[in-house]
Amino acid sequence: MTTQIPLFDRVAILGIGLIGSSLARALRYYGVSRYVSGGDLSAAVCDKALELGIVDSATTDLAAAVDGADVVVLCVPVGACGPVAERIAPALKPGAIITDVGSVKQAVLRDVGPFVPAGVHLIPGHPVAGTEHSGPEAGFPTLFEGRWAIVTPPTGSNAEAVAAVTGMWRRFGSKVELMEPSHHDRVLAITSHLPHLIAYTIVGTASDLEEDTKSEVIKFSAGGFRDFTRIAASNPTMWRDVFLNNREAVLEVLQRFTEDLTALQRAIRWGEGDVLFDTFTRTRAIRRSIIDARQA
Amino acid sequence: MTTQIPLFDRVAILGIGLIGSSLARALRYYGVSRYVSGGDLSAAVCDKALELGIVDSATTDLAAAVDGADVVVLCVPVGACGPVAERIAPALKPGAIITDVGSVKQAVLRDVGPFVPAGVHLIPGHPVAGTEHSGPEAGFPTLFEGRWAIVTPPTGSNAEAVAAVTGMWRRFGSKVELMEPSHHDRVLAITSHLPHLIAYTIVGTASDLEEDTKSEVIKFSAGGFRDFTRIAASNPTMWRDVFLNNREAVLEVLQRFTEDLTALQRAIRWGEGDVLFDTFTRTRAIRRSIIDARQA
Repeated sequence: MTTQIPLFDRVAILGIGLIGSSLARALRYYGVSRYVSGGDLSAAVCDKALELGIVDSATTDLAAAVDGADVVVLCVPVGACGPVAERIAPALKPGAIITDVGSVKQAVLRDVGPFVPAGVHLIPGHPVAGTEHSGPEAGFPTLFEGRWAIVTPPTGSNAEAVAAVTGMWRRFGSKVELMEPSHHDRVLAITSHLPHLIAYTIVGTASDLEEDTKSEVIKFSAGGFRDFTRIAASNPTMWRDVFLNNREAVLEVLQRFTEDLTALQRAIRWGEGDVLFDTFTRTRAIRRSIIDARQA
Repeated sequence: MTTQIPLFDRVAILGIGLIGSSLARALRYYGVSRYVSGGDLSAAVCDKALELGIVDSATTDLAAAVDGADVVVLCVPVGACGPVAERIAPALKPGAIITDVGSVKQAVLRDVGPFVPAGVHLIPGHPVAGTEHSGPEAGFPTLFEGRWAIVTPPTGSNAEAVAAVTGMWRRFGSKVELMEPSHHDRVLAITSHLPHLIAYTIVGTASDLEEDTKSEVIKFSAGGFRDFTRIAASNPTMWRDVFLNNREAVLEVLQRFTEDLTALQRAIRWGEGDVLFDTFTRTRAIRRSIIDARQA
């Protein structure tokens, strides 16, 4: 793979957590950038990234980290994208591309956009990939292989800049989809944000149980609960920011979900077996579609 | 394994689906019964079981299936246990044991109990194991290995009968736990029944979306949603019966869940990041406990 011609001379990764460190590794593994510069506000994380050998340099000075970079990838929680953009803006080289990996796209455009200097291209993105683990040790170079990377260029984006960002994801083995930011936020609210909120809730409900019941919940978690705890172990800061920054879309799907749950609750209370059976049969079709789409 | 001395001369499996067919396979694989008799109201399922070679005989006449059996295992949906017990009662041999694999235990005792002849032992059980697949082809002999089998003998049960049932599960590699039926139903309501209800709901909510959004939900399901669709692909009849027969416990945990979800919804609406962050941090501890308990 490393025999491929690098797409970039220098890429800066800001925020070296699960995604940032995977990206840094992938940039090398697939020979996409000649030099990988890392930036993270935590000195311990910078040291760890250097120790792991996944970046050529690492610094807590984010402006220094982007110096001379062709591409800057914001890998921080969505709520930190604006402040980070403000800090690095004066140091960006003309013609540079800023992109990101956030799970919400309208908020990134709203928060980062105002700081982007003339001649610099903002092309937001979102790799639909991840694990329940966090931190620079948790990353791996093939995280994006076979996964979707959604790119949401604002109207009037520079075509070469868009091609550079989509080209990067393709080199990582991702399938790329271009999407309207608002559409992205609505689709992801149902496929990702609501499932995480539900999982966090049910695990929270369980952790409020009396101690003796709780230990049995852990013991017998294989009955379904366990799958929810994996999702509910994801990074708390990242997810707080997702919910705060995709509020409208999340509240909208949450409302639909609550109505549907209330209907099933009523069916259970009144012993309406047919309602339950029909719902449980209908949901099988979606699973089949996912298997057919090779996403299972 | 087959060199081990059989525990039973003849075991009858009634209902040859995922669990019943796994049990039939396990009885042979671990050398637990000399003869395995199968019963299922579907002639097609009986033919398939014979074709797969997982039973010595198979019949749609359930009373004939239990003839001479030392142990009868009801592997039908919880709501069918009573009617099946009524049908087979006259054919049970003195000293026989009836057990089951249902996800609800008080209802099985309530529905099956009245039909159990004097001298026959009812020892309900529940292997906490399964997959999202259904039918005799879906089973496999090692399904129960390393998983919990909960046995809920009613007060005053025959000790030898209890030992026979727990011994069977241990031979399959299961860890056995004795439990009060009501306690079982309360613990499983949170570890299994609520997660399934939630998963069915969220997948149902998604399947009500407009067609174009729905196809994108399938495409980008890897963000969390996919895990829910797997759970929501489980057998609809089985799950209908679980909810109808564990109503009180399910409604109780559902009420707690809804309160907790409403609190998070409110935090999202009012931008209370601290509430979200605290909840998302607390839930990580449960995941760690599950990993420590080697249930992950």
